[in-house]
Amino acid sequence: MYPSSIIKLIESFKKLPTIGEKSAERLTFSIINLDKDVVLDFSEALVSVKEKINECELCGNLTEQDICLICSSKNRNKKVLCVVEDPQSIIMFEKLGVYDGLYFIINGLISPLEDIGPGDINIDKLIKRIKEEKIEEIIMALKPGIEGEATTLYIIKLLEGLKVIVSRIAQGVPMGADIQYIDSLTLERALEDRKKIS
Amino acid sequence: MYPSSIIKLIESFKKLPTIGEKSAERLTFSIINLDKDVVLDFSEALVSVKEKINECELCGNLTEQDICLICSSKNRNKKVLCVVEDPQSIIMFEKLGVYDGLYFIINGLISPLEDIGPGDINIDKLIKRIKEEKIEEIIMALKPGIEGEATTLYIIKLLEGLKVIVSRIAQGVPMGADIQYIDSLTLERALEDRKKIS
Repeated sequence: MYPSSIIKLIESFKKLPTIGEKSAERLTFSIINLDKDVVLDFSEALVSVKEKINECELCGNLTEQDICLICSSKNRNKKVLCVVEDPQSIIMFEKLGVYDGLYFIINGLISPLEDIGPGDINIDKLIKRIKEEKIEEIIMALKPGIEGEATTLYIIKLLEGLKVIVSRIAQGVPMGADIQYIDSLTLERALEDRKKIS
Repeated sequence: MYPSSIIKLIESFKKLPTIGEKSAERLTFSIINLDKDVVLDFSEALVSVKEKINECELCGNLTEQDICLICSSKNRNKKVLCVVEDPQSIIMFEKLGVYDGLYFIINGLISPLEDIGPGDINIDKLIKRIKEEKIEEIIMALKPGIEGEATTLYIIKLLEGLKVIVSRIAQGVPMGADIQYIDSLTLERALEDRKKIS
């Protein structure tokens, strides 16, 4: 039904997450109506990202250099490491603009159900970095839940005997959320971790 | 915060309809994780669509030739023309596989509010085609509403004196819809156009 160049572009869009048949068609039609320059820029940007972006040798963050801008910055606190799952998490923290330490991407969580063990994520590299750079505090900022918990406990175990503080970002009810719609696990954690305020 | 190649790709994705900042970031990150071949194919497909696709000289459908496959087919009924707004509408009808006539894309609807007059859409070309090809029936398949109505009435006026049947696809309550959630205009039309069934 479609000319072959349209079919190919629809297939390409469908390879992206959350883009189904309908969305892929809609996006493809929108490309036809865009200025040619805009489409050429898009086409080049795709290749450029794939060719230039690699992982920071120290933290795993996405970078066009060997070492990312955060790890190589002179204005960051080099004694604190925020442990996150993925590069997107780093962006979230950086957008806040309140954290001045370094990051470390462990690239997943321990999950026996999905057959992901400690060896499948960057835990060894994390421990090595903590030791070599004499990190004083690691802040665990993983997705709350059983897998994040298991990963955190495993790391704590490996750090036994080292003088490093392990903290975890607060878990509980998010701002603005109606208590009646909060899932029971979150509410349980919120109650458990309640904070004395007066 | 992002390396420049990532920023550029995010900006490109944001030029697509319904893709906001968050989605653009998510899609960009997904590109990083795709195989290089897949990304190269995507990049080429973008340029290829922009370079190869043009409008069928007869009906306005998207095609890589001068005349689209439907207009040049020998198996279609050349006396019936289905008048649609855009190429996507043709695809919807073709997917049904029950219509064997030709199409004509008028590329918009008359809309005084948006300052779109009869001269801004392909009405002259439609009338010319109806006359030259001795079309016997045109089926109006425009978006139901005031603008579709106005466009249809305008076309009917121009066809006065010609021996051509003008029909309109049925308007009313869509299959599976709860009557309680149907808008009043649709319900009014459904009542007005009710069909005797026994």
